[in-house]
Amino acid sequence: MQPLRSAEVAAARTRIRPHLRPTPVWTVPGESLGLAGDTGVQLKLDQLQPTGSFKVRGATSLLTDPAIADLVATAGVIAASGGNFGLAVAWAARRLGVRATVVVPASSPRAKRDPIAALGAELLVVDGVYADAFAAAEERRVATGAVMAHAYDQGPVVAGQGTAAAEFLEQVDGLDTLLVACGGGGLLAGTLAAVPPAVRVVAVETAGTATLRAALDAGEPVDIEVSGAAASALGARRIGGHAWAVREQLHAALVVTDGQVQRAQRWLWGAARQLAEPGGATALAALTAGAYEPAAGERVGVIVCGANADPAELVSWA
Amino acid sequence: MQPLRSAEVAAARTRIRPHLRPTPVWTVPGESLGLAGDTGVQLKLDQLQPTGSFKVRGATSLLTDPAIADLVATAGVIAASGGNFGLAVAWAARRLGVRATVVVPASSPRAKRDPIAALGAELLVVDGVYADAFAAAEERRVATGAVMAHAYDQGPVVAGQGTAAAEFLEQVDGLDTLLVACGGGGLLAGTLAAVPPAVRVVAVETAGTATLRAALDAGEPVDIEVSGAAASALGARRIGGHAWAVREQLHAALVVTDGQVQRAQRWLWGAARQLAEPGGATALAALTAGAYEPAAGERVGVIVCGANADPAELVSWA
Repeated sequence: MQPLRSAEVAAARTRIRPHLRPTPVWTVPGESLGLAGDTGVQLKLDQLQPTGSFKVRGATSLLTDPAIADLVATAGVIAASGGNFGLAVAWAARRLGVRATVVVPASSPRAKRDPIAALGAELLVVDGVYADAFAAAEERRVATGAVMAHAYDQGPVVAGQGTAAAEFLEQVDGLDTLLVACGGGGLLAGTLAAVPPAVRVVAVETAGTATLRAALDAGEPVDIEVSGAAASALGARRIGGHAWAVREQLHAALVVTDGQVQRAQRWLWGAARQLAEPGGATALAALTAGAYEPAAGERVGVIVCGANADPAELVSWA
Repeated sequence: MQPLRSAEVAAARTRIRPHLRPTPVWTVPGESLGLAGDTGVQLKLDQLQPTGSFKVRGATSLLTDPAIADLVATAGVIAASGGNFGLAVAWAARRLGVRATVVVPASSPRAKRDPIAALGAELLVVDGVYADAFAAAEERRVATGAVMAHAYDQGPVVAGQGTAAAEFLEQVDGLDTLLVACGGGGLLAGTLAAVPPAVRVVAVETAGTATLRAALDAGEPVDIEVSGAAASALGARRIGGHAWAVREQLHAALVVTDGQVQRAQRWLWGAARQLAEPGGATALAALTAGAYEPAAGERVGVIVCGANADPAELVSWA
């Protein structure tokens, strides 16, 4: 697979501009992380996007792609997802007046399904797990001619996800390093396409969703058993082809534990009063847990990419 | 009492600038509120301030006031508070290298006390309720010569709180109306000092903390029985003199219920993935509950002023 070009991210940015605004960057003092001087940590608050995750970037980029616009307008879009991507496709489809079908596995929680239906998407619940939902969506796609939206391994989706990093670089001068969460690798591949080679990109996975680490160790993408707190957001079974194609541009690929992610969620709340779901705080965890140690004066940016935490998890924080 | 002048807000802004940055404004579509067209609701995210509330503005403004700087440097500062103001004074004192004592009533929760001590303030716990803590603080002030910091009725504090509205007006062109929560009225009085007469300022109180409504009904400030979800943040016993002095500049004084506040908290989470405590979402509740009905095209701004919600309250939202 050919790496995505930065021009594709730029084109996605132009397409999504009428629908999504740049999210704010908020800097928090780096003191509590042992960062030197006034450097601070630059947080790209992309969980402020509609539906609470960056995924609306990719979904909107896909549905506005000129190559498929006619097809989408007549046959609609279909996605398999019980989580943030299903919500993002439903949101973008509604915004653009497109018919959407989201197939969710029966194992997905009602709390994630109901908002998808509330956005007007047709909701299909199928027995089994994510792979079963994907198979049902594919069957339906063949029957209806709808465009399949893939959560992390489709060019226009990946290009859309890259717009977060492109914005971030314009908002903060001289960013040296970007920490990005990796599940299937859509945000990661988009980020690598968006930033110049001088910017170090660090991929961060949780131990239960470490598809990139497994692929790097095996020398090729391999299936993993998905588990842990970030499973619903980062739980792809194997790293996507777009991310795999750009692995050599990565500065590092780090793995953090669920406990380190939870401590990052708490740090984020304490330092910036922002609530992130586990997948949304995974990149930050590399910094708060010391898995990534910036040099003195290094300007580190973190994309906070999802807010949709389960409130029940927060009670133990008090 | 003389109304505060806008020049005092401007001076406070200059003093706090090295310590506090302007908080972002985030616009959410007004659609779900029945607001016409692309107007949207302008949210001033002031709960992003250090310690999670706007109160650091007033505390920092006070401790940098040239009239008391020498006194503060030698004798320190003292405040009675079990909540956000105590935290704000502790934060500002630490930032400025000033000695701080915070007197809290034994009725205040540990979760609010511990962060005050963690910021390095001397913490005194006294038996009883807020009034007992205030009396103990006053006794101590006389003995030590420390400067008393008042949560809502002291010129430099009120001027500091007004800086939120001053920033807001610079960030959003053509704001017609500002909705502001009122407890003791510090934020309200500061806002009225900061904005030109053409901007409508609407005060919003909860039914259990409606000191302004009680005073307007009685024709003079009167004591109320404080109760309800916003009591720890908005629970002054009577409206402050600064707010009372400017009551005739108010466009309206509205009262919302705790249930309406909770729905506003949920709306804010759903629409903008921001978490506000009850007092922090009280102004918004006037809009989401329809107590304030904007005209077509009216540009309405809301100051979201506190984040420090009890996570246990959120579980019922899921």
